[in-house]
Amino acid sequence: MKLLRVGPAGAERPVVLGEDGTAYDLSGRTADIDGAFLARLDPAELAAAVAAGDLPRTETAGERIGAPVARPGTVVGIGLNYRDHAEQIGADLPAEPVVFLKPTSTVVGPDDEVLVPRGGEKTDYEIELAVVIGRTARYLETVEEAAGVIAGYAAVNDVTERAFQLERGGQWDKGKSAETFTPLGPWLVTPDEVGDPQKLGLRLWVNGELRQDGSTADMVFPVLEIVRYLSRFMVLEPGDVIVTGTPAGVTAGHPGAAFLRPGDVVELEVEGLGRQRQTLGRA
Amino acid sequence: MKLLRVGPAGAERPVVLGEDGTAYDLSGRTADIDGAFLARLDPAELAAAVAAGDLPRTETAGERIGAPVARPGTVVGIGLNYRDHAEQIGADLPAEPVVFLKPTSTVVGPDDEVLVPRGGEKTDYEIELAVVIGRTARYLETVEEAAGVIAGYAAVNDVTERAFQLERGGQWDKGKSAETFTPLGPWLVTPDEVGDPQKLGLRLWVNGELRQDGSTADMVFPVLEIVRYLSRFMVLEPGDVIVTGTPAGVTAGHPGAAFLRPGDVVELEVEGLGRQRQTLGRA
Repeated sequence: MKLLRVGPAGAERPVVLGEDGTAYDLSGRTADIDGAFLARLDPAELAAAVAAGDLPRTETAGERIGAPVARPGTVVGIGLNYRDHAEQIGADLPAEPVVFLKPTSTVVGPDDEVLVPRGGEKTDYEIELAVVIGRTARYLETVEEAAGVIAGYAAVNDVTERAFQLERGGQWDKGKSAETFTPLGPWLVTPDEVGDPQKLGLRLWVNGELRQDGSTADMVFPVLEIVRYLSRFMVLEPGDVIVTGTPAGVTAGHPGAAFLRPGDVVELEVEGLGRQRQTLGRA
Repeated sequence: MKLLRVGPAGAERPVVLGEDGTAYDLSGRTADIDGAFLARLDPAELAAAVAAGDLPRTETAGERIGAPVARPGTVVGIGLNYRDHAEQIGADLPAEPVVFLKPTSTVVGPDDEVLVPRGGEKTDYEIELAVVIGRTARYLETVEEAAGVIAGYAAVNDVTERAFQLERGGQWDKGKSAETFTPLGPWLVTPDEVGDPQKLGLRLWVNGELRQDGSTADMVFPVLEIVRYLSRFMVLEPGDVIVTGTPAGVTAGHPGAAFLRPGDVVELEVEGLGRQRQTLGRA
């Protein structure tokens, strides 16, 4: 099942897609797709309601799509999690997951404008698989427990200003925090529909040129292990988002390549999770 | 003026203290002390209403005190921001602020139990001055603009698990993220009452022994410069919390010193901002 939020920023309405792509209005069941809704969501029950015609149809053509989950409590990221990416930038494979955080104010819709920050000179893209949490997770012991706390998956662009991340002192977060730096969506796809999250292709284009072409099969730490691991360092709550690392092909790994500039167009697609398209602007 | 939240975790009610320490119920004006309330707060108007007897008195004796601001959107930290602390741990003074993030799920009341995380061996205290944001801040140019976005100040313990922070790969956030790791309060004190934020004493005791005894005068980057600087890397929103660094005396800088253990009692006091008392427990 695919859940999404449609409408102007800050005033999105909740929508569910039927198997044939027909859009149904979820407003009668929840004011928003947020942590509280995800915590009580029973995908099989909702799918049955859709199939039975219990939900009103809604027209979404021409409307903006928001991030598929309302303002999360936490956005947490995993660094250097693809073998080909670590190789590309000359980094050793990490012995355990590298963890960073992004302010939740960075989350925008999948096709919203992405702003090169003022003073930014090395704004870069990172296509990633996002995990959305559906149940509170605290000190999980096993990957089986981890599977039980996942509400679904989404495509995400973990936009990063490399100069801020790597050349301005200290911690990566400084380059991960600018407004518009986490385009998420278009859909939250439930695990039953995604199947094996370690078999998804990821592709990203800049101005039509293919730059990233990877697979989640290449992850150093697979999704369920990431969720288990993170739950031992922080409490994961319903609605929280994990961005799980990017495959090879980011600009930072190509000496001499041009970073993103206003007017550039980034398109990306995660297999089964839909497509994003962002035009770059200037903050 | 001092604002606080009193009651069980998750069900706190908003309170304001009069000049003589009498507590008045703010529930008639706001459901909670959150970003939306702080964004419209006029301290002079509220103080006049208190003085005029427009607010009902409330009894708080014996009740739990919560963090003085409801769940923030972002908690951002500044590292190595005191000259004596950098010297103690043998670090160079940073050329510009070192920035990290904490999940907002870490925020608890000033006297709540602090839990040593499972697997944690080096849980450490950090007394700090917290800044609470009252107006949206984006690309501020000057420290004068920065002064205009601050709702107030509070005491905070930026609890840190050093082994997770420094010995487990990559970024500091891993050691800053455990539940209960950000005791905040007891009060949010408005800037007019705090006066110069660079003249505040900070003292912290473990089991009655004085461990930290510093002053915000020793900051490398002062409060207003921190707010201005951060606003150029992220959007700061009403209710957001900045923890501005710790002076010398943390356990990490004393080779052989014992880190925090269940049963230990941490007490701390920031001049004019009140006192905290946490008993350590085990997660």
